[in-house]
Amino acid sequence: MTTTLAVDCMGGDHGPRVTLAACRNFLEAHPESQLLLVGAPDALAPLKHPRARIVAASEVVTMDDHVEVALRKKKDSSMRVAIQQVKDGQAQVAISAGNTGALMALARYLLKTVEGIDRPAIATHLPNARGGDTTVLDLGANVDCNEQHLLQFAVMGSALVSALHEGHESPSVGLLNIGEEVIKGNEVIKRAGELLRAAAAAGDLNFYGNVEGNDIFKGTTEIVVCDGFVGNVALKTSEGVASLISGFLKEEFARNALTKLAAIAAYPVLSALKKRVDYRRYNGAALLGLRGLVFKSHGSADEFAFEQALNRAYDAARHNLLDRVQSRIAHARPLLAGAGGDAQLEAATN
Amino acid sequence: MTTTLAVDCMGGDHGPRVTLAACRNFLEAHPESQLLLVGAPDALAPLKHPRARIVAASEVVTMDDHVEVALRKKKDSSMRVAIQQVKDGQAQVAISAGNTGALMALARYLLKTVEGIDRPAIATHLPNARGGDTTVLDLGANVDCNEQHLLQFAVMGSALVSALHEGHESPSVGLLNIGEEVIKGNEVIKRAGELLRAAAAAGDLNFYGNVEGNDIFKGTTEIVVCDGFVGNVALKTSEGVASLISGFLKEEFARNALTKLAAIAAYPVLSALKKRVDYRRYNGAALLGLRGLVFKSHGSADEFAFEQALNRAYDAARHNLLDRVQSRIAHARPLLAGAGGDAQLEAATN
Repeated sequence: MTTTLAVDCMGGDHGPRVTLAACRNFLEAHPESQLLLVGAPDALAPLKHPRARIVAASEVVTMDDHVEVALRKKKDSSMRVAIQQVKDGQAQVAISAGNTGALMALARYLLKTVEGIDRPAIATHLPNARGGDTTVLDLGANVDCNEQHLLQFAVMGSALVSALHEGHESPSVGLLNIGEEVIKGNEVIKRAGELLRAAAAAGDLNFYGNVEGNDIFKGTTEIVVCDGFVGNVALKTSEGVASLISGFLKEEFARNALTKLAAIAAYPVLSALKKRVDYRRYNGAALLGLRGLVFKSHGSADEFAFEQALNRAYDAARHNLLDRVQSRIAHARPLLAGAGGDAQLEAATN
Repeated sequence: MTTTLAVDCMGGDHGPRVTLAACRNFLEAHPESQLLLVGAPDALAPLKHPRARIVAASEVVTMDDHVEVALRKKKDSSMRVAIQQVKDGQAQVAISAGNTGALMALARYLLKTVEGIDRPAIATHLPNARGGDTTVLDLGANVDCNEQHLLQFAVMGSALVSALHEGHESPSVGLLNIGEEVIKGNEVIKRAGELLRAAAAAGDLNFYGNVEGNDIFKGTTEIVVCDGFVGNVALKTSEGVASLISGFLKEEFARNALTKLAAIAAYPVLSALKKRVDYRRYNGAALLGLRGLVFKSHGSADEFAFEQALNRAYDAARHNLLDRVQSRIAHARPLLAGAGGDAQLEAATN
């Protein structure tokens, strides 16, 4: 069965130089894939492949374009045309490394949210000490969330994990907070805790309780939910610490002749470590809650990282993530009070 | 000149077992120090030292006591009595590893905030890739901040850095956000950006602009301001990543006979690294904006970590941090519109 990905080849910090190289590698690795390369035909001409086809788009959404510009002015942007391919059934999933806010807004506008979901969320996974991954959402789409949104994130995160991991039908959910105790946190977090406890009591969620920032990497729960501002800060902070430590390691091994010898002895260990903490491996975040699949790559992704995002999008499409998320949300709909109709309207007019 | 510290010896996860051992080491290392050991006399009797004196307190604020309990019920808690020593001029600074919310509330109630400051902030510093430290505030005291609070944090952070670091009269301030662009962030963050830019235009702050989570560890700015919820998550997340990476390192070096040999060769490098990323070294956060000095230790601090907090409190008292912060705030008072009187009332009645 062939799976078709629509790739916004113009997005991100590096554009076609990175995206085309990644697409070429991806095509080699996945004989059942097809790519729609979306962007300026001249820029995309260098990639000739029997399973790749160029879809022309004359404009590019830049990293600092306002959402309004992406929605109302640049109607032929590569980002928009890529999402349109999903809407039109030409592709099963769209991928872009462009401006997150614009991607979210365009995806909402073109694809609409699933009934019961106010706002789509961005979910990614991070490595944990148990040797597995922790799925974290939201990561930047929603900067002012209420308790209903956090509950929706919990439901969507549960759907994502159970869809992509066999035998994880009821993954555990933690609410990111500043302490484990129920009394901790701001008002939204406290009310979200009440909603999540009620959902757990009703048997619709496996809610663990409050977790703290370090629990993401301990793997205390399979899923951690938080608002997009907090999630984005946590993600970037963790990247910063990982870079700092690898910088320290390099400095310490370069200190003198003896430590340089030690570095040679330790080379296999250091490259294994480097691989395990390489943030590029974790590139590729799902936009959840939409009536179509969209994946977001880090804007600064290099060839290797962008290929990971393509892999992730491909896996999601092949695991039929969209149907699974939708049916999970449908099952939990009685929980998701207040969401739905208004959200559709808001998405359409925003 | 003798400097006296009032130590809440009963607070934290471990109580006197850790705090007393740290106090003993601290006294050995600082011949011009005096300690007031606050708590249950029986529990504190084991530490006999000519420069240590027990101040009896019959109650203990537990980690999950509500703020109300600390304020209104346990009027003879070790935490409260330690702060009272500062208020009464018996000590220059108080230190506690107890419940953060209770410590902040008691400190506000007993010491009051400085004119122009609504809410005290918790500031700590974290290592950065430039070989220096980045001061981050707030770290958990204030979970719902408005733009005025963020401006106050910027002023207090600038005061802290300039007081403790010679020649850093005008340290740079970054506003923690989810992107560098001015259009990013939630409404509070956008308004805070406007206030900070206005303060910089008036010459009262060295405002750099928005920074992201990774900039804390890059050292892009000397100070990073954020609300307490976000700051707490960033801090705990960074601890989690550091633990994960050191766990990975251990696993990789233990993998087989060859990697174990490599570990021996790399031992000096690994212990240098361990020292550089040891979170215990960064223990001890200042509560800023009060009319008296209070320091907070991590609740789970061990003997080494608690001693770092004592060291930090001692340095701050000897650098006359209190006067310097107060005079900096006084200078910036025209900036801090709307703060002051109400805050005093709120602090007194909260």
